[in-house]
Amino acid sequence: MKTLLYGGSVINVFTGEIEKANVLIEDDKIIGVGNYTPDDADVTEDVSEKILCPGFIDGHIHIESTMLTPSELAKISLPHGTTSIVADPHEIANVCGVDGIKYMIEASEGIPMNVYINIPSCVPATPFDESGAVLQAEDIKPLYKEKRVVGLAEMMNYPGVIFKDESVIKKITDAHNEGKIVDGHAPFLTGKDLDKYASYLIGSDHECSTIDEAIEKIRKGQRIMIRQGTAARNLKDLLPLFDPPYNHRCLLVTDDRHPADLMNEGHIDHIIRLAGQYGKSQITAIQMATIQAAEYFGIKGVGAIAPGYRADLLILNDLEAVDIKDVYSHGKKAVCDKVVKDFTKPSINDSLSQITLNSFHLKELTKEDLYIEPKADKCRVIEIIPGQLITKEKIHKINWENNNGIDTKEDILKLAVVERHKNTGHIGLGYINGIGLKKGAMASSVSHDSHNIILIGTNDEDMVIAANHIRKFGGNVVVCNGEIISEMRLPVAGLMADMSAEEIARQNENVRLSVHSLGVNDNIEPFMNMAFVSLSVIPSLKMTTQGLVNVDKMERVSLYCD
Amino acid sequence: MKTLLYGGSVINVFTGEIEKANVLIEDDKIIGVGNYTPDDADVTEDVSEKILCPGFIDGHIHIESTMLTPSELAKISLPHGTTSIVADPHEIANVCGVDGIKYMIEASEGIPMNVYINIPSCVPATPFDESGAVLQAEDIKPLYKEKRVVGLAEMMNYPGVIFKDESVIKKITDAHNEGKIVDGHAPFLTGKDLDKYASYLIGSDHECSTIDEAIEKIRKGQRIMIRQGTAARNLKDLLPLFDPPYNHRCLLVTDDRHPADLMNEGHIDHIIRLAGQYGKSQITAIQMATIQAAEYFGIKGVGAIAPGYRADLLILNDLEAVDIKDVYSHGKKAVCDKVVKDFTKPSINDSLSQITLNSFHLKELTKEDLYIEPKADKCRVIEIIPGQLITKEKIHKINWENNNGIDTKEDILKLAVVERHKNTGHIGLGYINGIGLKKGAMASSVSHDSHNIILIGTNDEDMVIAANHIRKFGGNVVVCNGEIISEMRLPVAGLMADMSAEEIARQNENVRLSVHSLGVNDNIEPFMNMAFVSLSVIPSLKMTTQGLVNVDKMERVSLYCD
Repeated sequence: MKTLLYGGSVINVFTGEIEKANVLIEDDKIIGVGNYTPDDADVTEDVSEKILCPGFIDGHIHIESTMLTPSELAKISLPHGTTSIVADPHEIANVCGVDGIKYMIEASEGIPMNVYINIPSCVPATPFDESGAVLQAEDIKPLYKEKRVVGLAEMMNYPGVIFKDESVIKKITDAHNEGKIVDGHAPFLTGKDLDKYASYLIGSDHECSTIDEAIEKIRKGQRIMIRQGTAARNLKDLLPLFDPPYNHRCLLVTDDRHPADLMNEGHIDHIIRLAGQYGKSQITAIQMATIQAAEYFGIKGVGAIAPGYRADLLILNDLEAVDIKDVYSHGKKAVCDKVVKDFTKPSINDSLSQITLNSFHLKELTKEDLYIEPKADKCRVIEIIPGQLITKEKIHKINWENNNGIDTKEDILKLAVVERHKNTGHIGLGYINGIGLKKGAMASSVSHDSHNIILIGTNDEDMVIAANHIRKFGGNVVVCNGEIISEMRLPVAGLMADMSAEEIARQNENVRLSVHSLGVNDNIEPFMNMAFVSLSVIPSLKMTTQGLVNVDKMERVSLYCD
Repeated sequence: MKTLLYGGSVINVFTGEIEKANVLIEDDKIIGVGNYTPDDADVTEDVSEKILCPGFIDGHIHIESTMLTPSELAKISLPHGTTSIVADPHEIANVCGVDGIKYMIEASEGIPMNVYINIPSCVPATPFDESGAVLQAEDIKPLYKEKRVVGLAEMMNYPGVIFKDESVIKKITDAHNEGKIVDGHAPFLTGKDLDKYASYLIGSDHECSTIDEAIEKIRKGQRIMIRQGTAARNLKDLLPLFDPPYNHRCLLVTDDRHPADLMNEGHIDHIIRLAGQYGKSQITAIQMATIQAAEYFGIKGVGAIAPGYRADLLILNDLEAVDIKDVYSHGKKAVCDKVVKDFTKPSINDSLSQITLNSFHLKELTKEDLYIEPKADKCRVIEIIPGQLITKEKIHKINWENNNGIDTKEDILKLAVVERHKNTGHIGLGYINGIGLKKGAMASSVSHDSHNIILIGTNDEDMVIAANHIRKFGGNVVVCNGEIISEMRLPVAGLMADMSAEEIARQNENVRLSVHSLGVNDNIEPFMNMAFVSLSVIPSLKMTTQGLVNVDKMERVSLYCD
């Protein structure tokens, strides 16, 4: 079947020119750009006054951060022009291992948004973590045979690279030997340490927050992925990258982005719009988001409107506004007048489905499990800093007389991280300050990067109810006086739901509002802050299933101070 | 072993900047660029006042055109800064098939100039040819497993692509499925035909002779290889490609280049120098000749001075003159003060050696073999046009009375193309005009693209001696009055010699002068013109082992006119 789009102007990403040209599509491919006529085609579409643009590629995204399955993500991202993403299924791999990655591959098979996969390089994220799986080089290697796998995802373990940890180096060399790329993740790495890291041909970085850092990394051969996510928003600081001589070495990515932001602000289209608003060339931004991404990842025949390229293209009402009317994916209309078309969801094989839907492996909790023995006068308390993921260590004199040390007046709440992958019974217990909860408890199965169950509460009864609810349904929950007052269920690995983005966003907002109603300070994003309390790579004091970790010293520390 | 090059300025091909920096090399790799000190290294070299530049990559060259083995080519190209070439062993494949390609791989193994291989796509070049081998898709596919093979070489059979010839398309899709590139060769192809050709993601073209052609091909997604060879010199016409927005989509290549030109003018350095003389940025030219070439071919970790990159680099006395003092290849000095260092020649396995050294499979010729029957008054004569490879058809009344139709006064000489691969006894016979030989005969085993034995002579006796000499030794020979008056032996497949470039150039010049001394017109390059008389893809009238071909009509024609 041949389709002719006639009368429009075409963005040529090889040259940055906009040319008047008709585009001839056969099946899933563009076969001609030029003076084709209706006689050349079976079907025609008038795109006069419109601008044709290749579909956008998000070069680095964690689908799990959207809490949506790939199909549901496609439904909200396609109208924003995202026809391809390079996903790093790091979160689900931490829960379900290789099966989690295979789930992501199956759950994205044949959907109109192309999902390329980078294999998570660091599962678990730290040696302090108890994750659902440990991915060694030999577990990863067979996955490179999957046709949508393009590389090894962000190598966060930069000390491992710098100190030539054998198992880390093997993952990198395996990827290169298979002809795949290796993405980087090395915030603030500079000078000789950066040289050591880049020496392994780690091809990109998406963690740059200053222009100097970005330019140094480009000079060392890395592509810079300009990131504009929900929390991390680096675009403004990296604007000079849109100019020569740097622009050809950059991509656009979101990394972690919430569904509400995707729906309200947009996806890659949002970054291109912003670049324009900051006075940069939108065509340059589009080149980053199309051909430059495809060529970096070695994805052939994608990212341009040219003969032989896959017919992933956008019909824009207006370039400046990146106002997308229609989206073609694989030569078929996926979005028509801004409305995404229905498509068949991929079927997941039963065994993978069961594994991802039954990812909680732990006994029911009881109050006794959360009891903290009063062994010392003072304890190390995790202090939350509003607007940040880093925490501080606060030494606090615990009032053991009352409520097992919880003291809402002083904002000393109980914190627990409950191992949920292998029924080890490990529970990290302690106290947290700065949340502001006055009654009830909150819990979640989203707790980076191992996604054990994390709980914060004002009393053990509500905490136990919350934990046992999460154990059954996954997601986020708020409990008060023994009642569940709001919840968002995330049954897929405790991370994602097969709900629409609208529904997820609504439920997400609901649980957020309900913890605020229980007293959580307005300057805190309660579930987001809680989700990072367990990530023992961000300074300073974090809680794992086996207790506190001082991240600055990279060592476990006791709850008790003498 | 760590070597520090200190005090120099480094050309950064990612950004086009020149930065003051020391370069630290460990074994064959660059591991640091920055403020390293002698304490970081075992050995140091002062490169103050010098400029460090990545080694140059020739993106498309036929080694056979230099008549040198890869080792001997390396000896003259390394001092000109060529540390990598992408070779298309099209000529030797036409003689020896897959074994010829394997010979090229073995003969270039471990030499200080890196030889990457593209597999010849069109052997034989035309259906009229009788070559030594026919390479089908299934013969080619296993070669992609060889580690220096990067793709499928110039797809000259563009009608085959346009009309979707199954065997042609299979070669292309096989290459893509193996993750390899496919190079193009489609002079003057434009518009809808170019779209059809480019639709198969044929990634490059090195045949552009006008800027309009080049820009159209860039817009269609192809890389343009700016060619400056011995005969084809396209640089001047393609100068706008050195400017944005085209420069990032270009490479530099030589295609076919004689050893004398390599020694006297240079190799890729010559093109960079010329670009500068024409007012273009030499840094841009260097980017084309380094990182852009490596990235196009998917050769990772080559083409830049950056951590993790192979230590192929040049120490320049002066950038404008591209004055190369030293060359590092794989971290070892390959050229020191402009003098190439000795290296061990690769050993070739016996069977490959025997096949390439015994490539003439035909009986001794006799005078009777060259006899032309006088069947008509007029014959179709090939007319040579000075300075061009195209020929004309000339209808000429033959004087059969005398010397079997040869008439030196009218410059009507006898021409023969003798099949030499499979002892078929096929000999194409006819007449040629425009050469000017007054006595004797000349012969060669270099006759494109099948490299049968080609002969031009004033009498059958000398022609037979010449042919039988070539049958034994390969190469070029000039015979007069029964005596060999000059020769250049090319024993390897009848195409190459294991002699130094100086010696080849000397002998080549010798045979050229000696045919001129026998009357050949000064405006003719006698052996070059003769070598293309058998190539039935260039208009208009050509001679094959089975007689004349009218290339304009793509059909065989009779010698005789009625």
